[in-house]
Amino acid sequence: MSEAPARGFASDNSATVHPHVLAAIADVNVGHAFGYGHDEFTQRVEALIAGQFGDGAHAFLVFNGTAANVLSLRAACRPWGAVICTDHAHLNVDEGGAPEAIAGVKLLTVDGEHGKLTPADVEGRIARLGDEHAVQPRVLSISQCTELGTVYTPQETRALADLAHRHGLVVHVDGARLSNAAAALGTSLSALTADVGVDVLSFGGTKNGLLGAEAVVFLNGGLAEGFKYLRKQSLQLASKMRYLAAQFDALLTDELWLRCARQANAMAARLAEGVGSVPGVEITRPVQTNAVFARLPKQATATLQEQFAFYTWDDSAGEVRWMCSWDTTEDDVESFTAAVRKVLAAGG
Amino acid sequence: MSEAPARGFASDNSATVHPHVLAAIADVNVGHAFGYGHDEFTQRVEALIAGQFGDGAHAFLVFNGTAANVLSLRAACRPWGAVICTDHAHLNVDEGGAPEAIAGVKLLTVDGEHGKLTPADVEGRIARLGDEHAVQPRVLSISQCTELGTVYTPQETRALADLAHRHGLVVHVDGARLSNAAAALGTSLSALTADVGVDVLSFGGTKNGLLGAEAVVFLNGGLAEGFKYLRKQSLQLASKMRYLAAQFDALLTDELWLRCARQANAMAARLAEGVGSVPGVEITRPVQTNAVFARLPKQATATLQEQFAFYTWDDSAGEVRWMCSWDTTEDDVESFTAAVRKVLAAGG
Amino acid sequence: MSEAPARGFASDNSATVHPHVLAAIADVNVGHAFGYGHDEFTQRVEALIAGQFGDGAHAFLVFNGTAANVLSLRAACRPWGAVICTDHAHLNVDEGGAPEAIAGVKLLTVDGEHGKLTPADVEGRIARLGDEHAVQPRVLSISQCTELGTVYTPQETRALADLAHRHGLVVHVDGARLSNAAAALGTSLSALTADVGVDVLSFGGTKNGLLGAEAVVFLNGGLAEGFKYLRKQSLQLASKMRYLAAQFDALLTDELWLRCARQANAMAARLAEGVGSVPGVEITRPVQTNAVFARLPKQATATLQEQFAFYTWDDSAGEVRWMCSWDTTEDDVESFTAAVRKVLAAGG
Amino acid sequence: MSEAPARGFASDNSATVHPHVLAAIADVNVGHAFGYGHDEFTQRVEALIAGQFGDGAHAFLVFNGTAANVLSLRAACRPWGAVICTDHAHLNVDEGGAPEAIAGVKLLTVDGEHGKLTPADVEGRIARLGDEHAVQPRVLSISQCTELGTVYTPQETRALADLAHRHGLVVHVDGARLSNAAAALGTSLSALTADVGVDVLSFGGTKNGLLGAEAVVFLNGGLAEGFKYLRKQSLQLASKMRYLAAQFDALLTDELWLRCARQANAMAARLAEGVGSVPGVEITRPVQTNAVFARLPKQATATLQEQFAFYTWDDSAGEVRWMCSWDTTEDDVESFTAAVRKVLAAGG
Repeated sequence: MSEAPARGFASDNSATVHPHVLAAIADVNVGHAFGYGHDEFTQRVEALIAGQFGDGAHAFLVFNGTAANVLSLRAACRPWGAVICTDHAHLNVDEGGAPEAIAGVKLLTVDGEHGKLTPADVEGRIARLGDEHAVQPRVLSISQCTELGTVYTPQETRALADLAHRHGLVVHVDGARLSNAAAALGTSLSALTADVGVDVLSFGGTKNGLLGAEAVVFLNGGLAEGFKYLRKQSLQLASKMRYLAAQFDALLTDELWLRCARQANAMAARLAEGVGSVPGVEITRPVQTNAVFARLPKQATATLQEQFAFYTWDDSAGEVRWMCSWDTTEDDVESFTAAVRKVLAAGG
Repeated sequence: MSEAPARGFASDNSATVHPHVLAAIADVNVGHAFGYGHDEFTQRVEALIAGQFGDGAHAFLVFNGTAANVLSLRAACRPWGAVICTDHAHLNVDEGGAPEAIAGVKLLTVDGEHGKLTPADVEGRIARLGDEHAVQPRVLSISQCTELGTVYTPQETRALADLAHRHGLVVHVDGARLSNAAAALGTSLSALTADVGVDVLSFGGTKNGLLGAEAVVFLNGGLAEGFKYLRKQSLQLASKMRYLAAQFDALLTDELWLRCARQANAMAARLAEGVGSVPGVEITRPVQTNAVFARLPKQATATLQEQFAFYTWDDSAGEVRWMCSWDTTEDDVESFTAAVRKVLAAGG
Repeated sequence: MSEAPARGFASDNSATVHPHVLAAIADVNVGHAFGYGHDEFTQRVEALIAGQFGDGAHAFLVFNGTAANVLSLRAACRPWGAVICTDHAHLNVDEGGAPEAIAGVKLLTVDGEHGKLTPADVEGRIARLGDEHAVQPRVLSISQCTELGTVYTPQETRALADLAHRHGLVVHVDGARLSNAAAALGTSLSALTADVGVDVLSFGGTKNGLLGAEAVVFLNGGLAEGFKYLRKQSLQLASKMRYLAAQFDALLTDELWLRCARQANAMAARLAEGVGSVPGVEITRPVQTNAVFARLPKQATATLQEQFAFYTWDDSAGEVRWMCSWDTTEDDVESFTAAVRKVLAAGG
Repeated sequence: MSEAPARGFASDNSATVHPHVLAAIADVNVGHAFGYGHDEFTQRVEALIAGQFGDGAHAFLVFNGTAANVLSLRAACRPWGAVICTDHAHLNVDEGGAPEAIAGVKLLTVDGEHGKLTPADVEGRIARLGDEHAVQPRVLSISQCTELGTVYTPQETRALADLAHRHGLVVHVDGARLSNAAAALGTSLSALTADVGVDVLSFGGTKNGLLGAEAVVFLNGGLAEGFKYLRKQSLQLASKMRYLAAQFDALLTDELWLRCARQANAMAARLAEGVGSVPGVEITRPVQTNAVFARLPKQATATLQEQFAFYTWDDSAGEVRWMCSWDTTEDDVESFTAAVRKVLAAGG
């Protein structure tokens, strides 16, 4: 990687690692430490993570977001348990069939406007209880923020959780971008989860400046039972765990998670404002966190993609996705906005 | 981790990350890169790894050793396939049931002296072919070096591979410490694997100075078919892949893998020589790589463990394991040897 | 079961076993026979079944329909393979999550009018080929007849199969009621399957007069490879297999399958004609085989269910299902029609 | 099957169905009945089965013995649970890898003399509790009678169960031939199971005169939770369940199970006595139920197998197995004994 590649808008996964995170990794690179999380440092960091979510929380570090989600489900479900989520859920479309193949669970999907579930959606899926021919709903899984960049207010999550609990379901949050949601809503991480009835969550770090670390956080003690065995068996127990712990230590120090998420969100807002005013560009989803979805002529998309990395979201609809990251700068946004303006003005 | 913890002999997983590896990570931390291994740098490094094993090899990065092993089996087996290995195999005793639960395969184990399989052992397990009541042997898996620190010569591996192939089995090498074996035998990595009939291997890095990265390397093209889907589904596709690639780039630059492995092996040899001469200490296994197994009075073990981290291997036999790492120093060995001498002299 | 229970319209599973089938079971109840299908009689019957589908077919007996379907998928798919089917497919709604939990496959569902898929439906689901984040379509599964009693013409199946094959998919037919479809279309069993591109099918017997036996029939030799191991491992290898074979022997003797299916279909046609003319009853689906779907006032449904066994299909729509069986008689139909007429006339 | 095949000694699976069982099937073949066990008759029979094992037992009918065993384990284990059993256990050697592939559990095997476990054997396997790198023992599974025809006394089972329970394990009995064990010991079915601490068992019927039906019986209520979903999902819910129920109804009427088992056991005793006195034949296992194991010259075995069906058990040891069935007659035994005598006298 001899010359510095440009920053684009493909994914918050394309971003770099925050320097504080690399520094934290270097800091723990001293002497020997017991592996597999049995070192004191990791235990302190797991407690630190749990502490973000209140008493009784238990945090377990894993390698990636797919694992955090799938292991949450595997911990919550007996073989006949099913998971209610949206059609757009990462679980449903972007995890390579891992929920089915690794956790053995069936997903019961609902369309969901802008990637969000409503109580009415969920209620329609809590059906055939007691009928052995059908899987039995066990988990309600929402993404916060959603795959479409939208957020659930604490009140919305509480309403869903109350409904779920009334029917004996537990609530999972795919929080690969939970920090972005908290930053957008101006709340703590706990206010979006533990305080409103969530039972287990995937707390993402990799999309918010880490090298590669996520946490499964149980807010409902019973679900964590045996989870250490499940993590190991599911290929997610790091041997040199201190280097995962160090990343989360940095993320939780001086609210780095919040600063990174705010920057990504702010750049998305700025981007939406800039390109939204360009004739021929239509912003298609509420811009609430670090994603901007837009519709523009396909020729324009093609021309822009020669210069800037970003993905087409829905080819038939001509909808694209522009993700901002913790390392997206105002200059990045300005350059891109100018390019959009120029390309659209030139007719694609 | 305010004060520097001592170095012990618990595991090569307890060691630090080699500074060259951290430097390589920092070097790639510039600009955006496509995630999930779709960046050019990762592709170059995967080719570099494959290149160690000759034309036609394909390498895939994964997070940890359990995953490398289990995914190798999952790639090689249809549901009725079984895996022949030793009772001591990591697959059998230290992977939390992942081969069975995640790959769905049954292990057919053989006792095996000092952790090694012989053709006669294997032949006894290639049985009941065509009988649908029995699983069908599909993989012969050996560990190189073994869990007991011993190595297979290229000739020994070749004999096993020939036998396996005659019966339609493929050969897997759990190479979590393949570098130590190559260093011990004075061969290339390829000479122990591709050149003697191995079909797929787990090539370890984490135990040899990396932060956390392993590779599955296919030497038999057919087995790699669809592996990219399997890696994703099996929770092993890193989003920020360039940081795994950077680690292997460092490992393969100027034969860092060999230098690290030689140091670990040399320290084990020195340790064995030192403690082996202490009355009351019996070296129980051939010391061929970076592990020393010994029997000593239980009271002595307990006293030593107050000062130095190491594991009891077989409590009933009073056997312990001392692992050396890339970062084990002569001073570490001298201090420990002196302590052993002192404790044994004091009668435990 | 001291007094003879009435015949209703709940399911063709509620029907009795055809006397010829019981007689065939008694006929083979002589002397010892090798278990697990290794007796000559079973081998002759498996060949007889295969013979219905042409040269190169291979038939394997299993216990029930869920197994026949799930084992077909398990045989056809590597872990990343996915199955395209309708929302209404038995696979999707009535197999307790077995496709996901036992075969490990994800279903890609399409709405489908009256339970049928069109090429356009399927084409929309053959997407993201080569993208490791998504499962890869491997099987197109249709039900013949469908869960809504409709049939695919040979031409329709051929069009779907051609599409599937063009994309490297194989075609599975859930033929739990294949006999009813063949009877309705006036074709051989082969004309609906082997002759129009089907690769593997579940050939049902239990719903058509057997005690309990189904067959998985492979028309594409490659898929059958190793299937004997898969059947055993998937809990579907009967030890006293001759008693399953005897049932199919009876079913295929003098076209008992066809006579039974014709009777069921004829009774459904008669029922639809009878109740369809009752004011307040609306036939909601084309009546092509042995099922009649209708909408009627909920109060009428409740009153009728006190006398006759049948299921509500869609409670919100007030839609019910009336199934006819091989043992449904004209008297049964007349009595029921009269009851419907009376209840509706009385206003529910 | 035009001419009556001879009766041999291959397996109790090779035997016919008892006429009372066929009669019971014919008796229920009247009128319609709800499928899937929701008919009153099946519910009465499931209660009848449970009643053999005391208050609080729950019985579920399944198709075959492999299923009864594997579903028992699947019900008892979370993914990290393991099963202690003998090397000889049907679970370990004759179920095609189903425990691993379908239940996802690892077996921890012990050699075990004559197919039986001792408390010391088990204690050695209850190890590494709390260590996430190892599977956690959850089930102790014994076969009663064993695969080698031996039995556990109630006291022996009680001792094993007490040990298991002290460590938090549950006890499973593979009772494919439980009736033979009860007949041999002169006890009730309950005295061997519920009364001595067993938690769940596979209660066999197929090897004792049924056409094809087994029961999973839970003696520990908690384990049965959700089992109806597990049975369906695991491909074991018969649609026309009344025909499975009828078989068990016959088996439990007038102690048919006991009469059949006594006959099989008596014939084995007679056979052992007869052939045991033939020079050149060595009885190799205690003959306690319906199996006779013997060593004889390989040439003699070959000659005898031309006339009588039976299996070689251990080729290298020259050990064969002769199974008696409910339908084995004194004449069968006499003819076979005479043949053995003649063949051995002729020098093989």
